[in-house]
Parts: sequence; C-alpha cells; structure tokens
Amino acid sequence: MKDITDMEKDRQYMKMALELAQKGMGFTAPNPMVGAVIVKSGKVIGQGYHRKYGELHAEREALASCTEQPEGASIYVTLEPCCHYGKQPPCVNAILESGIRRVIIGSSDPNPLVSGKGIRILKEHGIEVTENVLKEECDKLNEAFFYYIQNQKPYVVMKYAMTMDGKIATYTGASRWVTGEAARMHVQKQRLKYTGIMAGVGTVLADDPMLTCRLENGRNPVRIICDSHLRTPLNSRIVKTASTIPTIFATSSKDQQKIKNYEDMGCKVLDVPEKNGHIDLNRLMELLGAAKIDSILLEGGGTLNWSALESGIVQKVQTYIAPKLFGGESAKTPIEGKGFPDPASAILLKNSEIIRIGDDFLIESEVKSNVHGNC
Amino acid sequence: MKDITDMEKDRQYMKMALELAQKGMGFTAPNPMVGAVIVKSGKVIGQGYHRKYGELHAEREALASCTEQPEGASIYVTLEPCCHYGKQPPCVNAILESGIRRVIIGSSDPNPLVSGKGIRILKEHGIEVTENVLKEECDKLNEAFFYYIQNQKPYVVMKYAMTMDGKIATYTGASRWVTGEAARMHVQKQRLKYTGIMAGVGTVLADDPMLTCRLENGRNPVRIICDSHLRTPLNSRIVKTASTIPTIFATSSKDQQKIKNYEDMGCKVLDVPEKNGHIDLNRLMELLGAAKIDSILLEGGGTLNWSALESGIVQKVQTYIAPKLFGGESAKTPIEGKGFPDPASAILLKNSEIIRIGDDFLIESEVKSNVHGNC
Repeated sequence: MKDITDMEKDRQYMKMALELAQKGMGFTAPNPMVGAVIVKSGKVIGQGYHRKYGELHAEREALASCTEQPEGASIYVTLEPCCHYGKQPPCVNAILESGIRRVIIGSSDPNPLVSGKGIRILKEHGIEVTENVLKEECDKLNEAFFYYIQNQKPYVVMKYAMTMDGKIATYTGASRWVTGEAARMHVQKQRLKYTGIMAGVGTVLADDPMLTCRLENGRNPVRIICDSHLRTPLNSRIVKTASTIPTIFATSSKDQQKIKNYEDMGCKVLDVPEKNGHIDLNRLMELLGAAKIDSILLEGGGTLNWSALESGIVQKVQTYIAPKLFGGESAKTPIEGKGFPDPASAILLKNSEIIRIGDDFLIESEVKSNVHGNC
Repeated sequence: MKDITDMEKDRQYMKMALELAQKGMGFTAPNPMVGAVIVKSGKVIGQGYHRKYGELHAEREALASCTEQPEGASIYVTLEPCCHYGKQPPCVNAILESGIRRVIIGSSDPNPLVSGKGIRILKEHGIEVTENVLKEECDKLNEAFFYYIQNQKPYVVMKYAMTMDGKIATYTGASRWVTGEAARMHVQKQRLKYTGIMAGVGTVLADDPMLTCRLENGRNPVRIICDSHLRTPLNSRIVKTASTIPTIFATSSKDQQKIKNYEDMGCKVLDVPEKNGHIDLNRLMELLGAAKIDSILLEGGGTLNWSALESGIVQKVQTYIAPKLFGGESAKTPIEGKGFPDPASAILLKNSEIIRIGDDFLIESEVKSNVHGNC
C-alpha cells in the first residue's frame, strides 16, 4: 500500500508520460500513442514516446535515452507493455533485461487476447506492478485505437460547425465562416489526430475542398469520399492531388472506365455495395478497418451525417457552436435526411464536455446508444 | 482608502443584499429588485428587500427590521437609494433620518434624470458613500429593469430548446421533450422572472399551451399572443383562462365582432399596425412598455423568432441544448423565416455564459449588434 504522497508522485510522472505520448499524435496509427518515463532515486533518468508507426516503442525509446543505468529504477508507461512480436520485439523483454524493479501502468492492453499478459509476465519475474494510474486520461488518449482493436473498424468522429440557431450555412449556402479562426485551427488538429477524413460527393461538388491538414509539420489524413455514382469531377482539387495525398473513393458504381480514370489519377477506388440508395457505410467501415484506417473524422453535410448516424458507425460527435444567428427556414442544418420521428427514438449523447475556443464553443459527446445501426 | 479586508467585507455584505434582492424576483416589476443589509460593529442588525410592487422599498424594510438602533451603522444596498416620490417616499430621507453613517451601493440608478442624485444628497449630509461594490452582479440582476427605464420598451429574452443538431422538434412535429426535467423547471423560473411571455398563433394552434408559471408560489406572466388575423380558437386553453390570467392579443385585425369575442372572454386586444405581413413588433413593444410590461420571455416558433430578431427587439438569447440528435431535413429549427444571406450579415451574440442543467446545457448570450432592426 502506497501512501498519498507516493500516489501523487505516481500521478505526476504518469502525467509527464501522457504529455510525451501526445507528441506522437497523428503519426503512430494503427499503433497507439504511448509515452514512458524512467525514474531512479526521485530523478527522471529517461523518457521516450512512440514517435511513428514502425519506429521504437516508448519503453525502448525511454531506455535508450537513460542518463544513468536503469537497474532498480521505476518505469511509468501510459499503456501496458506489449509481450508479442509485431514490427518491434516485445517491450516486456526490454524491461526485464534492463533491471527495472517497478512498472507503473495507465491503460491495460485493449486487445482481449493479450490484455493482462504483459503484466503477468512482469510479475512472474518479481517486478512490482502498479496498474490504473491516470487510467481515465490514458484510455481517453487512445480511445480511437481501443475501439479499432476491439471492432476492427475505424472510430468515427462526426464534426460540424453550426450557429447558435443550428445552421451550418446561410440560406444562400454561404458557410465562410461559421466559427472563428481559433475553432478552425482546432479542426486542423483533429485532421492530424484522426487517420482518415470522410466527406460526401455533395461537399466536394459544392466547395471543391482539399481536406488536408494545414498545420505546420502536420500530416494529411487519408481522404475518403463517399460517391455512390462517381460524380466527383476529375479536375476537382481532391482528384488532382491524389497522386501525392492518399485518397479513397467509396462507390457502388460498376463503370470500369470511370473507375480507371480515378485510379489513373492516383485514387484508390473501393467497391461498396449499395443500401437504401447510398453506399453501405457499415461495409465501408469494414473495408477501411482492413486497410488499417483506425479512425475517421467525418466532415459530412447533412445527408451523409444522417446516413452515418442511421448506420450506427458514429462513436463521437464534435459540435462547434458559433455565437451568431443565421436564421432561415431553408438554411442547412448539421444532420438532415429523414430524421427520427419522435424524441424517444432520437440518438442520445453522453459524457458531453464543453470548452471555449476563442468566441466559439465546442461540445464533444460520445454516442450513448445506437439502437438504429447495425453495430 | 479601505484596505483589502474591508473591501472583502463590503463584498460579502453586498452579496448578502443581492441574495435578499433576488427573493423579490417576479413580484417587483415594474420596479427593480433591491436588497439591503444594515451592519453595526461588525454585526448584521437589519435586512430587507423589495417584496412586491407597491410595498416598502428594501431600505425601509431593512430599517424596520433592525434589532438595534441604526445610528452610526452602515447600510449595503444593491441599487442607489431613490430620492423622488413614487409609490413610496424617497429612501434617501429614511436613511438620513435613521442616523446611518455609511452607505455602500451596488448599481447606480439607471434613470439618467436621477442617476447620482441620491448619492449626492447623502454626501451633502455628511454620509460616507462607497459605490460600485459588486456592480456587475447588481447590474445583471436588474438588466431587464435597466433596459426598460432607458428605453420604455420591454427587455426581450428569446428562449428556445434544441437538440445538439439544432432541431426544436422532430420532422413529425413532436417536441415532447427536447430537454430534460431540470431544464424545463429552469424555464418555469424564467416565466416567473420576466413579466410577460410571448408566443405566436402558430404555437397556440399547434400545442394549445397554457404559458403559465407552474412553480409553487409562482406568479403567472402576462400572456401576449401575436395573432395578426385573430385565428386563436375561442375554446383554446389560453382564451378560456383569460379571465383569471392576464392575456393580451396583439393583432392587426379590424374585425370588431371578433375582437369583442376575445374581450368578452377577458382578453385585452391591442391594435398593432401590420408590417411586412406581420404585426409591427417594434410598435407592439412601445405599447407593452406603456402598459408597464418591463420584460418578456419570447417562447416563439421559428417564424415569430425570426420576425423578432429582424425587428431588433431581442436583447438576450437563451439556448437550451439537449445532448441528443433528431436529424431530419424538414425538422423545425429555432429561427426560420428568410434568414440572413451571408455570415457577415448574421446577428452576433456576446458575453455568452454556459451552464449545465441536468444533462442539458444552457447558453445565455446578449445580442451584440443589431443593424437589422429599428432600435
């Protein structure tokens, strides 16, 4: 049993490890973000994080950075060390070889087949293990990864920006801008955070967007366009840049010449069956999961957003709210389509968190229940 | 110059006075809410608040409640004491007669003709006066009253409840319920707080509402129905209860028989000119101001809300947001009508404050600029 001060110290070092882990944001998928801190005699002697898919895991990075011998030290790691061979040899081995005496862990491994196994091996070798330190924060950091590992389908975040009266554009269709600069910059960070970005052909036809991440040293998300009948112009900015920025078209079209035209421009074209007049989004998620896309930021219009909700593929909703009023009976709203007939059948959200970004608000919520979808 | 501790003490007693003032909520209009606390030798010896229009002002209530002689005491009062004869003799006289030595004031009198006059008289009689203690909080308490005194028109608060995707009902028109019980109870408090409640004939036809305040020991707001052509059924709940609950119909109809039918049921019918196919809301506000209605909670549908915004009569917006999604291209939104053509012409909101009420959110904002209206 640790006393309060020791527990507080554990939390402090874990917080440091969490901050390190976040530095990998955007580059580790389909691996999780992980950070590690090595402490000996009350002094940090090593730290590291998983920088990029295919590179060293956090524990090995931290060990390699040690300024003193790690024998007898403690290692703080945001996620249970792995015990299986993947792109890298197991981290449990590295810890055992290092002479580390104590391992403090945030999240457990989300893979039910190996969860707890790393911890058991460590304990069998006489290492003291403390679990669940800042577990909630560590779990949240990798919520997309955890979902992906357990479902083999991407974690989908529906994002939209609306006015205080629920409009995403004026009645003329003008939408530049709903929110302020700080909120729009926040969206750019989301494009870095999630592996893919998804939009419908309607958005492409209306705005000819790039859907890239405009942050310095950022990384472009894989662009996924839902385009049942392949109506996206070959001279759209997305198609024209597909040879350098990964781009996937999800379509039910069987027109081989059309498909070849997109492929020739560098696009990947996924054949997805039709369902209720749209592409089957659940099937698309399976295909994207198989293609190692662990998470998607959905920046759809009202029609695609409705299909996504109805299909049950959405796990999280990001609602940016601008302190302004557009009015307009015909102004577009974030979720359109048919809609649910009565309040009792509505999709419920939970764990809503609200922050201010500049003059705007962002409410992030998890989808509570989705009795409508196939998930 | 007071030291920090004295200033902190002043704030504490003013806070007590503010809490007292709020007890009058719903009953003082068209007077402001005012609270007063009398302190002698570090002990509260008297307290009071303006309970009801026509009854004692807070200062006299506090003096009447004194457990010791108030000579040499300090009085904390949330609003500058009055110096003119109204329903009650001036409070400045009562303070001078009491032997009180120091007066601590929150808000200044909002009436430009008398603002500062009460303070000057007190000072001329050698009383020490400290102004602007918790001024912001005191001003906020009576924001409706302040607006009314300066404009002779009611302070209008537009209230609506919507889902996280900006819908006030499902596509079928079902709206029970958007928000949870706690938020709906909060609306009842607003109905107590503001003197009038306004809705359009569309809402009456759709819901046959009562628009009363259902709080225990509450007070019903004056019901104001905008009904250009007098389409409200005589057997609607509002008309049927008009003999006991004050009810005003604002109409452009000249049909004397129709008008008489409503009057016979106990309704007051206001003749308001037409403007752009609707009643002229600016003219209506003048008429309601003249009828001593200092504040209105606007619980309109999208059409009336749009007219109110376009007319420039709205000072505050209360947006209740429920953590659920209705979807639906044809589902109603809080503000409809034509709408503004581009984001640059939108109505801007300022000083937004957000609170959680049960599972819901409430964002309260002031209307920042209204270049559209006549105000």
